Amino acid sequence: MGSPVHRVSLGDTWSRQVHPDIECERNIQSFNVERLTNILDGGAENTALRRKVESIIHSDPKCSLKDNYFMTQNECYEAAVQRKFHIQTIAKCLGWSENSPELFYAYRAVSGEVALNIHSLFLKALRSLGSEEQIAKWAPLCNNLQIITTYAQTELGHGTYLQGLETEATYDAATQEFVIHSPTMTATKWWPGDLGRSATHALVQAQLICSGARQGMHAFIVPIRSLEDHTPLPGITVGDIGPKMGFDYTDHGFLRLDHVRIPRDNMLSRFTQVLPDGTYLKLGKLQINYLSMVITRVNLLWGEILPILQKACVIAIRYSVIRRQSRLRPSDPEAKVLDHQTQQQKLFPQLATVYAFHFLTKNLLEFFHSSYDAILNRDFSVLPELHALSSGIKAMVSDLCSWGTELCRKACGGHGYSKLSGLPSLVARVTAACTYEGDNTVLYLQMARFLEKNYLLAQASQDSTSQRSLPQSVAYLTAPDLARCPAQKAADFLHPQLYTTAWAHVAARLIKDSVHHLQTLMQSGADRYEAWNQTTVMHVQAAKAHCHYVSVKNFTETLDKLENEPAIQQVLKRLCDLYALHGILTNSGDFLHDGFLSGAQVDAVRTAYLDLLPLIRKDAILLTDAFDFTDQSLNSALGCYDGNVYERLFEWAQRSPTNTQGNPAYEKYLRPLLQSSRAKL
Amino acid sequence: MGSPVHRVSLGDTWSRQVHPDIECERNIQSFNVERLTNILDGGAENTALRRKVESIIHSDPKCSLKDNYFMTQNECYEAAVQRKFHIQTIAKCLGWSENSPELFYAYRAVSGEVALNIHSLFLKALRSLGSEEQIAKWAPLCNNLQIITTYAQTELGHGTYLQGLETEATYDAATQEFVIHSPTMTATKWWPGDLGRSATHALVQAQLICSGARQGMHAFIVPIRSLEDHTPLPGITVGDIGPKMGFDYTDHGFLRLDHVRIPRDNMLSRFTQVLPDGTYLKLGKLQINYLSMVITRVNLLWGEILPILQKACVIAIRYSVIRRQSRLRPSDPEAKVLDHQTQQQKLFPQLATVYAFHFLTKNLLEFFHSSYDAILNRDFSVLPELHALSSGIKAMVSDLCSWGTELCRKACGGHGYSKLSGLPSLVARVTAACTYEGDNTVLYLQMARFLEKNYLLAQASQDSTSQRSLPQSVAYLTAPDLARCPAQKAADFLHPQLYTTAWAHVAARLIKDSVHHLQTLMQSGADRYEAWNQTTVMHVQAAKAHCHYVSVKNFTETLDKLENEPAIQQVLKRLCDLYALHGILTNSGDFLHDGFLSGAQVDAVRTAYLDLLPLIRKDAILLTDAFDFTDQSLNSALGCYDGNVYERLFEWAQRSPTNTQGNPAYEKYLRPLLQSSRAKL
Repeated sequence: MGSPVHRVSLGDTWSRQVHPDIECERNIQSFNVERLTNILDGGAENTALRRKVESIIHSDPKCSLKDNYFMTQNECYEAAVQRKFHIQTIAKCLGWSENSPELFYAYRAVSGEVALNIHSLFLKALRSLGSEEQIAKWAPLCNNLQIITTYAQTELGHGTYLQGLETEATYDAATQEFVIHSPTMTATKWWPGDLGRSATHALVQAQLICSGARQGMHAFIVPIRSLEDHTPLPGITVGDIGPKMGFDYTDHGFLRLDHVRIPRDNMLSRFTQVLPDGTYLKLGKLQINYLSMVITRVNLLWGEILPILQKACVIAIRYSVIRRQSRLRPSDPEAKVLDHQTQQQKLFPQLATVYAFHFLTKNLLEFFHSSYDAILNRDFSVLPELHALSSGIKAMVSDLCSWGTELCRKACGGHGYSKLSGLPSLVARVTAACTYEGDNTVLYLQMARFLEKNYLLAQASQDSTSQRSLPQSVAYLTAPDLARCPAQKAADFLHPQLYTTAWAHVAARLIKDSVHHLQTLMQSGADRYEAWNQTTVMHVQAAKAHCHYVSVKNFTETLDKLENEPAIQQVLKRLCDLYALHGILTNSGDFLHDGFLSGAQVDAVRTAYLDLLPLIRKDAILLTDAFDFTDQSLNSALGCYDGNVYERLFEWAQRSPTNTQGNPAYEKYLRPLLQSSRAKL
Repeated sequence: MGSPVHRVSLGDTWSRQVHPDIECERNIQSFNVERLTNILDGGAENTALRRKVESIIHSDPKCSLKDNYFMTQNECYEAAVQRKFHIQTIAKCLGWSENSPELFYAYRAVSGEVALNIHSLFLKALRSLGSEEQIAKWAPLCNNLQIITTYAQTELGHGTYLQGLETEATYDAATQEFVIHSPTMTATKWWPGDLGRSATHALVQAQLICSGARQGMHAFIVPIRSLEDHTPLPGITVGDIGPKMGFDYTDHGFLRLDHVRIPRDNMLSRFTQVLPDGTYLKLGKLQINYLSMVITRVNLLWGEILPILQKACVIAIRYSVIRRQSRLRPSDPEAKVLDHQTQQQKLFPQLATVYAFHFLTKNLLEFFHSSYDAILNRDFSVLPELHALSSGIKAMVSDLCSWGTELCRKACGGHGYSKLSGLPSLVARVTAACTYEGDNTVLYLQMARFLEKNYLLAQASQDSTSQRSLPQSVAYLTAPDLARCPAQKAADFLHPQLYTTAWAHVAARLIKDSVHHLQTLMQSGADRYEAWNQTTVMHVQAAKAHCHYVSVKNFTETLDKLENEPAIQQVLKRLCDLYALHGILTNSGDFLHDGFLSGAQVDAVRTAYLDLLPLIRKDAILLTDAFDFTDQSLNSALGCYDGNVYERLFEWAQRSPTNTQGNPAYEKYLRPLLQSSRAKL
């Protein structure tokens, strides 16, 4: 079962002894935990490499997250810059290149809490949107941190709706320069990471104005701070946007540009160009501009969002076998809270969800990588599906991870409210993902437009004799459908084929309903825009159901590939069943609506679902151990491998500035009062 | 429409001019906003008094919340102590007594962000559980802040399950003292407010051991810090529990007691006594101990939890008429986000919910006050219903307020993530309410036990000829029930009688199902405890449905009483309809399950629901104005009355320490790097 030594490495007094209440959970192993870790890592060699990197990073105290919970925003930022530079130094020393798995694991070991993260986003945008010459010029400067870059898109008054951005880039043919300008207060760039106190260069998204014509959003490299003394360059107003819910380690900033001139070469020009005389050339579809957002979303899911719910599950489930509350019987000792059905009902669906999303995201990543080269070579045929999937899945995963992480936090009761549990910072961080890189509602609606279009295509192809094939993720829209679910008893609902079909049925019906509702409104006189707005609530619901279907189907297909690992296949199948059935119960109205399921069948789903809980209970600790997070990267008094929760919580609290710093309020306010009362007592 | 001057009082540059996009929302008033404010305040005289107090508090800069978002935990605490003492000074000066409406409004004006809040909890417990002599001795010391008190119940290893608390109070007849002791690490008191750095005395809940017998939980007044120099008294280890998700202004603490001796008189003894020789006397039911928790819960709902969702609605809805995003038609300017159906679908159910909860909580408060005297006089007949209602309603209100506040925050996009929006601190504060004063799951289960008992009583009374009357809130369990909803079209669902009956039907069915499921398990051999644990998920669901029914019924009854205010009645009826229908749609599976509603009827509910949104849209700003929060107490750059969102956000950010303090990371890490690269550029 891997190396506990690897995990138990905080080096404090208690790590030497594992709490018996968690030790006994690991005594009987129905599957090989180490093997599951390897599968999650994508191979035993990756597991080994990751652990090697982790031990290097954790042995350097400058990379430690230990005192994070006690820091101010400014202190967090400084520590994150320090961490970045130390990791960079280690990387140089050991030859870890940009985009290497080693560097990925190094950042994972410190939970991504380093400064200058947007740097890599800049690089990805550069590689997607820049010409070969531009990549050759700027990429090395970035890679060596000779310049510090940010990606400046969102504005004070404008977010997801890119066309609404106000920043202007007007081409001046006389000097062959672009004039970058913020015409209004609301045009101020707002939220770019690393901009507040660090960046020297920004990739600014701005409306290109060329020979008097507006050509839409384009990306421009704009120097903003002096490389000599870091002061803002002429025409630049730049600073930090102040306190936030989370991400203290990142200096999100604002940027106002007052007629700032940059050379013509600074417009990224793989797909569009402005010639010296101001002629505008298009070398690709405008939607290619969305490509860098697709890249960002997919990477975010994998590197940022998923690990958060994984950690929350690890912390909450480990704590739940140490924490005891209430007697299940008057004669028993207090029970582990994980033995309460209500606690299982909270945590196990989250565990199942994060496994489902792991395999879903992995699949999306593979789809992305297999499409990327084609797109760079201007074959855009898969872009609509890729865009829709990356939008919808980003929305679903961030929604449910956000919800699930907070649920895990609440399931830890009062201690989950302490920052020392690690959970509040996970919650604050993951909830941001519902907003950044596209507000989830807008993303669901983008998925909905894709679904509408394909539903209409499917209808057209059924009406005609010519069979047109739909993108793979929506192929079920033309598949034969059952009007009633054939299940007769609870056990029938443990057949992946059965519940996948059920999800397909519901998704297809909701898509059909929303499209028909839209058409009905239009037939009764509303124009397309009004009708669309009046059906968006329905479209969002349909998009959610479709994404849920995709994730269920993907999980079942993952299981099929595990036939050589029967023990692991069995334990993951329970999670897959739980994920699918929990989804049915949570949305039972959608399944009952047209009689696809009867009330009695929903009761059978519930029975099957509740019966799964005690089965998963037995493997719960092992399933969280399999994620193989080090104690250092969990950084949680509740979630350490050894289960010594209370000792650690007590000890960590002693280090808090609320105990180590003086209490001036006593001398100023409390003492005078109490002194005056002393005589009377 | 009241006095805008009262509201627009931040005194900054922009307050002079109201943003036209919010001004136009107030031009047409379908109802008298001032009158609605009076109703919410419980009378025009209360509105006047509240505004008078607010203007006094806001004119004192020492009471300001202005720089809160820039402070460390220690600074927040110090500011909160200062605020407490200034309000106390004002109160003394103007003759505001403890428990006066003036003091309540004063704390409301500063959002309750004062130190020494638990003081009043101590006092309430003292008045409920203390003898007349004890009240006479300790209450004046508290009221004059001659001692600083806390209420120490929760322990490091024990929360909601009171019987599990480990702290011991052993009576020593030889000295007529109690010996208070923490026998283990997990017995350490953990989380009491004001304990970390302030309190001199703690009301310690401990297991009474008397003549060798354990008598359960009792409350003891224990001096913990020297009144002379504030150092911990002998045997006391006390400190602060460190960083938390919210509540920086409160010093939550820990307390270990090592055989600390206190006089016999320090045990609160209204209902139980220990005689000098160690004889233990019971003067009331043991459950009376729960009374102080009931009091606390009811007051929390009113003073702490509800205002948070109210404020979140104010901020999000005001921001949503300033923020513009996407064109609804290509020819239009970008639309106010509040004109998007999806935004209405997010925010209006929250607005409806907070109105529903206002009237629900008001009703519960009245029920509590009408019962309180009887209970103090040892008439315990209404205690079970009061306890169940306060448990279930606390759970539902905190759950949905927590969910709704976060939803409002997310609906503000990126700016909702900035602390300057005011929303992150509201979210962090309200989510704590799901845990403190009883974990919500445990509270729902307490409600469920009450429901089970009354369901069985109802069955017994139907079987026999003797008609026993059930408590009022569960009387519907014996009322005649329809098997099918008679509604034929969308408009039918706007009849309060119809949807109240629908909710009663679903609640009764879920209660019946959970009780029957419990009985079935027991009949098939499980013992009561095992069967209970295996049905808790169902019981929680039933309890939630019951609470929802109670809140819908209460809202409709409130409307009935507004017959003299037809305009206000009309606008509130829309909210009541929306609240009830949103609940049906969110839980449609429960209504479809037994065919009470058909799929077509659920579609009709959705039509009725969606049609309400544009109607509420017209009054949305007025409905939030009616809460009449001052800009100072909202403390939000997004939510001010005048709508000057972007100017304020920009200006507030400039004051952040991330801009006003230096950037040592530049000299230490960034500069050396960039300097080395300069030659190469």
